Amino acid sequence: MDALDRLDATIRDRRGADPASSYVASLFAKGRPRIAQKLGEEATETVIAALTQPDTLASEAADLLFHLLVLLADAGLSLDDVRAELARREGVSGHDEKAGRTRK
Amino acid sequence: MDALDRLDATIRDRRGADPASSYVASLFAKGRPRIAQKLGEEATETVIAALTQPDTLASEAADLLFHLLVLLADAGLSLDDVRAELARREGVSGHDEKAGRTRK
Amino acid sequence: MDALDRLDATIRDRRGADPASSYVASLFAKGRPRIAQKLGEEATETVIAALTQPDTLASEAADLLFHLLVLLADAGLSLDDVRAELARREGVSGHDEKAGRTRK
Amino acid sequence: MDALDRLDATIRDRRGADPASSYVASLFAKGRPRIAQKLGEEATETVIAALTQPDTLASEAADLLFHLLVLLADAGLSLDDVRAELARREGVSGHDEKAGRTRK
Repeated sequence: MDALDRLDATIRDRRGADPASSYVASLFAKGRPRIAQKLGEEATETVIAALTQPDTLASEAADLLFHLLVLLADAGLSLDDVRAELARREGVSGHDEKAGRTRK
Repeated sequence: MDALDRLDATIRDRRGADPASSYVASLFAKGRPRIAQKLGEEATETVIAALTQPDTLASEAADLLFHLLVLLADAGLSLDDVRAELARREGVSGHDEKAGRTRK
Repeated sequence: MDALDRLDATIRDRRGADPASSYVASLFAKGRPRIAQKLGEEATETVIAALTQPDTLASEAADLLFHLLVLLADAGLSLDDVRAELARREGVSGHDEKAGRTRK
Repeated sequence: MDALDRLDATIRDRRGADPASSYVASLFAKGRPRIAQKLGEEATETVIAALTQPDTLASEAADLLFHLLVLLADAGLSLDDVRAELARREGVSGHDEKAGRTRK
């Protein structure tokens, strides 16, 4: 199990834990809109890092992934659910894949 | 190698490929600001899915991860670089970890 | 009445209009999550323009304001409701004002 | 002069002021990436308010406009520059207008 899966497991373990016990538990306690807000903030930081400070991009991407895993866990999902979705898409070429997505 | 790492490898393979050959190659050709724009769009879609259509959240998270990997690859980084950052943070508790990040 | 208020009035007029009659009417027909998605996209474009192409910033800011007015109108609000909120805050210094906002 | 234009004038007045003197002056001192980050955060808050707490939307829209004016001012632009852009677009119908924008 690598660092990404360990993080995913740790985050899912903390659902329902005492909000004072960890940052993740405190995020779950604040509720989904607040978790989604953090995801949006980290996405903006990732965009800005990519454009102005690429040497911080791996760190910002880690923050973004971290909060994505919290948002998924809040909805009862894990990184494996995302992997399953990616596996389902394999074999579909990129251009076809984009066309095939249900876009608005 | 799971679907996430296969995707990361495929994306990194397509750097410098003919833009007409795949969606990923066309994104690389458009340049980093355009890739970052896609990341921002997918983050907003993920936020909205989490709040209004959680049954689409795994799919939106897959789109977000996909474009994050493209942005990382454009900067010469891979998912393993993010894993290395996460591993570096292990052993630091969540609350301490947040305090330790260089926040603005 | 200046261009901003004319735009606000035009947008509010188009609520409930035939979706085929204008871009704004088609946005209203798609519903609030889709309007919010457009706002998020335009915000990302504004961020990227500010950092990489400041000569396009006024145009991106116009797009962002446009979609903010659509989102407000979808909730039954107008630019004057935002002005009323800004007027309410006047007389409160910036630092006090920030402290006084109910932040999460 | 209404509350929105007074705010725009006040913000532009504070460029170059002592960062300790006001929230706006402190934002200018932190630089454009940090101002852009705040704009992104407020846009996400606006999206989430629209979808989950519409009664706070006017307030979130005020925060978003506030930070948009700071970003514009940082680039030497004012609300009147955005009005000029909107006036330029008048007479072009919504659907034509969208088609006419140079989209990526």
